[in-house]
Amino acid sequence: MMKKKKKPFVMLTNDDGIASPGLLALHQIFKHQYEVVIVAPATEMSAVGHAITLSDPLRVFDYSKNGEFYGYAVKGTPADCVKIGYWAILKRKPDIIISGINIGPNTGINTIYSGTVSAATEGAILGVPSFAISLGTFYNPDFIYAAKFARKLADLLLEKELPDKVFLNVNVPACPEKEICGVAITRQGSALYREEFDKRIDPHGRIYYWLTGQKLNKETSAEVDDGAIDQNMVSITPIHYDLTCYDFLESLKTWNIS
Amino acid sequence: MMKKKKKPFVMLTNDDGIASPGLLALHQIFKHQYEVVIVAPATEMSAVGHAITLSDPLRVFDYSKNGEFYGYAVKGTPADCVKIGYWAILKRKPDIIISGINIGPNTGINTIYSGTVSAATEGAILGVPSFAISLGTFYNPDFIYAAKFARKLADLLLEKELPDKVFLNVNVPACPEKEICGVAITRQGSALYREEFDKRIDPHGRIYYWLTGQKLNKETSAEVDDGAIDQNMVSITPIHYDLTCYDFLESLKTWNIS
Repeated sequence: MMKKKKKPFVMLTNDDGIASPGLLALHQIFKHQYEVVIVAPATEMSAVGHAITLSDPLRVFDYSKNGEFYGYAVKGTPADCVKIGYWAILKRKPDIIISGINIGPNTGINTIYSGTVSAATEGAILGVPSFAISLGTFYNPDFIYAAKFARKLADLLLEKELPDKVFLNVNVPACPEKEICGVAITRQGSALYREEFDKRIDPHGRIYYWLTGQKLNKETSAEVDDGAIDQNMVSITPIHYDLTCYDFLESLKTWNIS
Repeated sequence: MMKKKKKPFVMLTNDDGIASPGLLALHQIFKHQYEVVIVAPATEMSAVGHAITLSDPLRVFDYSKNGEFYGYAVKGTPADCVKIGYWAILKRKPDIIISGINIGPNTGINTIYSGTVSAATEGAILGVPSFAISLGTFYNPDFIYAAKFARKLADLLLEKELPDKVFLNVNVPACPEKEICGVAITRQGSALYREEFDKRIDPHGRIYYWLTGQKLNKETSAEVDDGAIDQNMVSITPIHYDLTCYDFLESLKTWNIS
């Protein structure tokens, strides 16, 4: 009897929560050729940054869709999901970890606030090839092309080798597939926000604030994540989690701080 | 009449919450020579990473100590505090932003989970010279030397110039002042954790997990944050928030992803 080739094993997570259609799109495109396990936050967890839950216990629930087991819902952050998935839920090490498909881009400075990206960071910390994937729109998202792209990239990552501690941050433009103008390897954009706090009074006379803001001086070059998706290109930024600014390290030594 | 020289203006924040003794130690050492404004989380916010509050409104309360106004307490994260302080509370741009003194070190991989560090990141994003400062112990913290060091470093930062988008992550060993062996300019350590999830059953029969773990293969060189504080040296790591892995960017282009 021929031994059946083992399917590659993917762990899927996100920050929009286990019920998100972006996660479902990944599940649907991976479920036939890959062994898939979903470990995702029970509820929406956007802009949680790289939070982990230390002060509270974590709880994990089986989550069903249409009467069938769909995945593990964690009352925690995306980083929690990857950690608990890897260390306590999965029976073996995944071949790849994918976080997404996020509703809305994770480019430029927003990369540092992104729960989607933090899950892929955890994957890289654990030594598993990982990427985050986000769709460049908040309205009427159509995940079909992004999901196909995720599948193609996953297949490639199983062949190629990412450097140690490096993962990919993928942003897919929200245009129709036939308008996609290719793939750009990019750097994280550095455009800043002009932020505002919208001050309001609640019905009980108390002040509260909403954070709002708009991006200033967005970079337009296709060498930058924001610029690439504006030009209908898929942006792929290689990311690492060593935050040391090596360029400044030697000069700082000359300050002779004592 | 001689014009009185304007005091430098410091915004203080942290992630242990506005009632933390580490923040008080900074307040006490800065309050005479600096104009000080505290904008800090109302409650403890450790390991929140670089979270910002988008889905809920932010509330700000006056916080008093010994019957006197002490600072602004924000129901939010350290990053929220810096943002709302800068954009909505402070009357003018601060000359410096300091986050700390944290109870426990923020070195190595923990740098990416640290609310303390994320507040200094926000400072750098806003173009304000900033540093995070943490004390290398969780037990019986004595902040006196770390506070003096923070004051000396702040004085220096007012003279010197940090590069754009760069801030400092300072970790002070918890030894007595006379045992301090100088200052090391370091890189972020890359030691990993072996994590475990301690599985328990609550009194209602439901499973829950606590995240625990221990650092493996801690680096011992004084060129690394962990190693420096183990050698009783103050560790200063220059940090930036551009997460692009430039070293891998060109090789990734040769993958010809389409």
